[in-house]
Amino acid sequence: MNDALTAAVKWNSDGLVAAIAQDASTGRVLMMAWMTPESLALTIAEQRAVYYSRSRQALWRKGESSGHVQKLHRIELDCDGDTLLLQVTQVGDIACHTGRQSCFYRRWQEGNWTASEPVLKDPKQIY
Amino acid sequence: MNDALTAAVKWNSDGLVAAIAQDASTGRVLMMAWMTPESLALTIAEQRAVYYSRSRQALWRKGESSGHVQKLHRIELDCDGDTLLLQVTQVGDIACHTGRQSCFYRRWQEGNWTASEPVLKDPKQIY
Repeated sequence: MNDALTAAVKWNSDGLVAAIAQDASTGRVLMMAWMTPESLALTIAEQRAVYYSRSRQALWRKGESSGHVQKLHRIELDCDGDTLLLQVTQVGDIACHTGRQSCFYRRWQEGNWTASEPVLKDPKQIY
Repeated sequence: MNDALTAAVKWNSDGLVAAIAQDASTGRVLMMAWMTPESLALTIAEQRAVYYSRSRQALWRKGESSGHVQKLHRIELDCDGDTLLLQVTQVGDIACHTGRQSCFYRRWQEGNWTASEPVLKDPKQIY
């Protein structure tokens, strides 16, 4: 593992860093997930987003079951080292397990969180 | 406080939710910070980003000392309710305390994290 890669990151008390995925072509923010030092190193090595699933407590190669892989274009670290920003190509144009392009599909308007993005594919057909 | 606003959010064990700020005009992701229920409610009420500073353990009206206020255009919640995405106008075009447009200014290239954005204003002149 490249020491320079992980040494600059400020890992939280759980040993994780937040990682934001942004569509490199449209600029749409797709999701936020978490990485371990191992998943960050694999993300660089494999040039695809590899997160750490807190619920499953396991490496999570985004798209491993859905096919909705995120190909890596660029990765950036913020000023205090506790958040990563990934520029990706989202295979299938669907990042969210609900079948939407982005996980950020609920918009606050008129006093409610309202779903504001269409479901592009039935989740049952994804997983 | 609006119950609908905060009830849909999955607050972490510290009572916080992650909040990403994105420039509404350029799409550049500017920063990631944290919010409490109170700061989220104030963000909506004042139509500007109000975070919670974990280091200072206090409300943080972004721009209160620098003038680099983030005017709110839109706010979205992700599928599992643990991250917010704010579309903002960044006053002064500087979000980072280092005087750069975005906090995500260190890019991983050729085996190092390399500063890849110019300092637009001397930080000493900001704070």
